[in-house]
Amino acid sequence: MRTVDIIEKKKLGQELTDEEIAFFIKGYTEGTVPDYQASALAMAVYFQDMSDREISTLTLCMRDSGDTVDLSDIPGIKVDKHSTGGVGDKVTMIVAPIAAACGVPIAKMSGRGLGFTGGTIDKLESIPGLSTAVDNERFFKQVKDMGIAVVGQTGNLCPADKKLYALRDVTATIDSIPMIASSIMSKKLAAGSDRILLDVTTGSGAFMKSTERAMKLAERMVAIGTAAGRKTVAIVTDMNTPLGRCVGNRLEVMEAVDALHGKAETELMEICLTFASNMILLGEKAETIEEAESMVERVISDGSAYKKFRDMVMAQGGDVSYIDDISKLELAPIEYEIKAAKSGYIHNIDALAVGEASMLLGAGRETKDDNIDFGAGIYLEKLVGDYVNEGDTILRLYTSDKSKISNAGRRLEGAIVISENKPEGKSKIIGKVE
Amino acid sequence: MRTVDIIEKKKLGQELTDEEIAFFIKGYTEGTVPDYQASALAMAVYFQDMSDREISTLTLCMRDSGDTVDLSDIPGIKVDKHSTGGVGDKVTMIVAPIAAACGVPIAKMSGRGLGFTGGTIDKLESIPGLSTAVDNERFFKQVKDMGIAVVGQTGNLCPADKKLYALRDVTATIDSIPMIASSIMSKKLAAGSDRILLDVTTGSGAFMKSTERAMKLAERMVAIGTAAGRKTVAIVTDMNTPLGRCVGNRLEVMEAVDALHGKAETELMEICLTFASNMILLGEKAETIEEAESMVERVISDGSAYKKFRDMVMAQGGDVSYIDDISKLELAPIEYEIKAAKSGYIHNIDALAVGEASMLLGAGRETKDDNIDFGAGIYLEKLVGDYVNEGDTILRLYTSDKSKISNAGRRLEGAIVISENKPEGKSKIIGKVE
Repeated sequence: MRTVDIIEKKKLGQELTDEEIAFFIKGYTEGTVPDYQASALAMAVYFQDMSDREISTLTLCMRDSGDTVDLSDIPGIKVDKHSTGGVGDKVTMIVAPIAAACGVPIAKMSGRGLGFTGGTIDKLESIPGLSTAVDNERFFKQVKDMGIAVVGQTGNLCPADKKLYALRDVTATIDSIPMIASSIMSKKLAAGSDRILLDVTTGSGAFMKSTERAMKLAERMVAIGTAAGRKTVAIVTDMNTPLGRCVGNRLEVMEAVDALHGKAETELMEICLTFASNMILLGEKAETIEEAESMVERVISDGSAYKKFRDMVMAQGGDVSYIDDISKLELAPIEYEIKAAKSGYIHNIDALAVGEASMLLGAGRETKDDNIDFGAGIYLEKLVGDYVNEGDTILRLYTSDKSKISNAGRRLEGAIVISENKPEGKSKIIGKVE
Repeated sequence: MRTVDIIEKKKLGQELTDEEIAFFIKGYTEGTVPDYQASALAMAVYFQDMSDREISTLTLCMRDSGDTVDLSDIPGIKVDKHSTGGVGDKVTMIVAPIAAACGVPIAKMSGRGLGFTGGTIDKLESIPGLSTAVDNERFFKQVKDMGIAVVGQTGNLCPADKKLYALRDVTATIDSIPMIASSIMSKKLAAGSDRILLDVTTGSGAFMKSTERAMKLAERMVAIGTAAGRKTVAIVTDMNTPLGRCVGNRLEVMEAVDALHGKAETELMEICLTFASNMILLGEKAETIEEAESMVERVISDGSAYKKFRDMVMAQGGDVSYIDDISKLELAPIEYEIKAAKSGYIHNIDALAVGEASMLLGAGRETKDDNIDFGAGIYLEKLVGDYVNEGDTILRLYTSDKSKISNAGRRLEGAIVISENKPEGKSKIIGKVE
């Protein structure tokens, strides 16, 4: 078998055999297939796509390129939740404790943020004392003891995906649906949960800019999970505007705590209700979505969802006084306000602009080695649909470095659209694939 | 400027600027742009094509990546001739001396063969004593003295193309028209002739399998030459069957000498008449094609074309006794005959099969470092259109290594098609672009 023939075949739009895909992934992981052949193949895949069978095989080969986590010692149906990334996306911090409070074991490995999207691990670590570097033994024990742990990746999971992703990043082959689907699902399958709930975001602040592509990606990932014997459900959500009011690590922890007390914006609560109840259904702790939804409402109102979050924070070394009283969480000291240029209704606050501005303020990483300023970020004083008078504050920017304000401000130029008529309200939930 | 953005732009089907193409070629030549980005870009170009302007810029950047030959000291309009490769293609050895005998200065740098196509340099070197390793000073002097020199490439011509071609070869990006056109034309422009005549072959024994793609390639190369101020003409020719009766280095020298004496097959003579008269027109030694054709016939019949070839062979150290009496040229000692399986008219003798079989017999290189057996090859006893009786010899195989016969024989299975009706004769000349 020769790699050049595999590239040629895909270039001509033909289906690769399981053996050819396995040969390629094994060779690439081991270094016998060089980067220049892998990038040519990735580009051919971008143009010629892959069948569900090809993507499944690619996913399994990448899963098997390294360690896999065996959660079978933990009783119950373990449910994982993954988002393809967004701006102000603190959903995992809210729905994981809710589902755990309803009896669904959550053994979740999560990622760090890069570029304009944040990562749950960074957000959790913005709570003083909290560590997500938990070894497997403690990880398993914590899930058994309290039903929830959200930790950083341990072990050598999916090295083939890691290497391929780094290559795709510098060869303009990131935005390829078969590549994205196999990259995400290989990590989800390696992480060992029995069922998977996916949040596939679409819009300016997401990798999938169109709903059509997001639906396609959702279908592909559900097909992979199903073929691998792991029931998978995907919900497609709108990410044209940031989710909720807070963007930035500590700001998002504050909003998550509020949500766990039932005190967040309707839009965010709607998203959390949908994801939490779907996790409960997947975990077979309810028989109908209505039943699951009333369980969600109960664990929020009786405080057990927040308590689950608090238990987890404490177990992972976090100082719970900061979440019991979120006003103790220190934000970055320098504030700057973006004000309404005219009076009217807010029609748009562009998610990508807000995400990138937040990164520029210090809340995210431009490159892997950047440090995060946990207190930096953006607070949305006003949301889409609100009426503002000229000069009203719409966004409040937080940073520790005054020199970063001007770049962030420039990035936000044109990001806010105000006009005379009140915009129609739209749900953030676009579709569901199962 | 970042290479990844250039790849992204081409991936989306946008035109690259001259600056972007120059940045890429300069970086790739110098090693700051890595192979894995170059191969991704080559694959994107395969799918998204390039405009004439982009291809011209790419060609000029590759030309300027190394040395260029300055022929301006040699008086007259220098005409170059290039073929995109074929099986039994000995045309250069015939038409270059004819054109030179008509007063067109020929200062030609030629290539070696790889795979199933032969190279003029290898064919010439199969004449005992002849060397094509001629330094620039002697090369220029020979052209000034006798009007003709066909030598191997000297100096560091188009290193960008050399590096990119080697990469394309292992990443399934050879068959990309913008890449082929720029690769050929960068070398032609670097080689310094004033006018260029291209033989763009099409069919089983050519890189372009369809006439449509061959015409497109021809148009692209003529556009590049014209844009660079070098008048360029392309003739598209059929390469579904081998050209003439001989395939293999010494066999082809024999046939070329016969053709220079006017004694070759009609089909080969037609091709040579067309190419030689077009070279004479490009060199402005005739005003009309009819005038050029009668000049060709004259220099063949009066022996001056053969004398020009003989002078060149002698000037480059060749022992002319081998061409004065071609029976002295030694063929490989082991002969094997492919016979007619049934009686009837020959409808096809597949060029690719014959070319590859000839390579397997030792006449060509599978890899760059293989040695050539000058006496190996295939002689076509019968041609398309001939009537054969069952058992008649159609092909005569020559090799020095008995073990090679079986592979070559297998490659020729199914290559010869015999049926009851006489096939219609077709010209090998398909079209002309200027």
